[in-house]
Amino acid sequence: MKKISLNVMPLTQQAFAAFGDVIETDGRSHYSINNGTTERYHDLAKVDLPVQYGRLLINIFRAQPNPLPIPVKMLERHPLSSQTFIPLSDTPFLIVVAAAETDPRATDLYAFLSNGRQGVNYHRAVWHHPLLALEKTSDFVVVDLDSDAENCDEFFFDDNLQVTISALIPDDDT
Amino acid sequence: MKKISLNVMPLTQQAFAAFGDVIETDGRSHYSINNGTTERYHDLAKVDLPVQYGRLLINIFRAQPNPLPIPVKMLERHPLSSQTFIPLSDTPFLIVVAAAETDPRATDLYAFLSNGRQGVNYHRAVWHHPLLALEKTSDFVVVDLDSDAENCDEFFFDDNLQVTISALIPDDDT
Repeated sequence: MKKISLNVMPLTQQAFAAFGDVIETDGRSHYSINNGTTERYHDLAKVDLPVQYGRLLINIFRAQPNPLPIPVKMLERHPLSSQTFIPLSDTPFLIVVAAAETDPRATDLYAFLSNGRQGVNYHRAVWHHPLLALEKTSDFVVVDLDSDAENCDEFFFDDNLQVTISALIPDDDT
Repeated sequence: MKKISLNVMPLTQQAFAAFGDVIETDGRSHYSINNGTTERYHDLAKVDLPVQYGRLLINIFRAQPNPLPIPVKMLERHPLSSQTFIPLSDTPFLIVVAAAETDPRATDLYAFLSNGRQGVNYHRAVWHHPLLALEKTSDFVVVDLDSDAENCDEFFFDDNLQVTISALIPDDDT
């Protein structure tokens, strides 16, 4: 049995750029609308939901919390479309992605911690773990594609490989 | 000066159906995904963002709170597209819409109170007031259309008409 413990990194636009967008207001430009009563943080994600494959959906996902250590046994990806998750519960959650075009290896994995006010938009075909809520049951706005075409690949790591996340302390040096 | 005070109704799917969708989990069907760890409340809004006119945007709007009484001096509408507002701050907010295809009259106005966990999706061309946060500065996820085409009509009520919202107590009999 080979065991790997993933380090968790803070979720920043720069660190996450290869996988998608961080949807947040901190540090983002904005401009006034509605006669000065509202600030618009404009166009925070590269949404990629090709209508030739289906229809845009707005959903709410309610995710159960995960106690540590969290096993990473599989990943999924959507080859046709992006997928956006924005937290509604102001609670940190984990993001696990892989920098791989084909089958991901354990060494391709990266884990990020959202502060609970940061959402993510996975770019098309980016390998990612399903929702990993922490602390409490957490709701998320999800914007994705409803398609009759096959749009979900799954990859399961070998049973002889045990990948876990054991601690949530972001490692700024990573 | 003619004065009109709008009653505020609870925001329900049934009451709001003529104007758009209520995006909420309460009372909505759902199904399990992600190996049983997540409930998906699927397809909560009739999103209508025609790509021939532009590009889908995900934004965050930060709205300043409004003290009572709140004047309703104008409305706007987007003739080409729907527009979705989902609250991130778990704080009630007001929705003012008009049942009118052309210039709205004061008698066409309806006001609804979101409980702070309910979002709304205004259907294409529905007259609505810009964001009306209450209590505190409130953030909203906004899904709308970026278009070079003209996509915002504004209507201003006559200066001799004073429409206000003076109380937030929903009137269940309305």
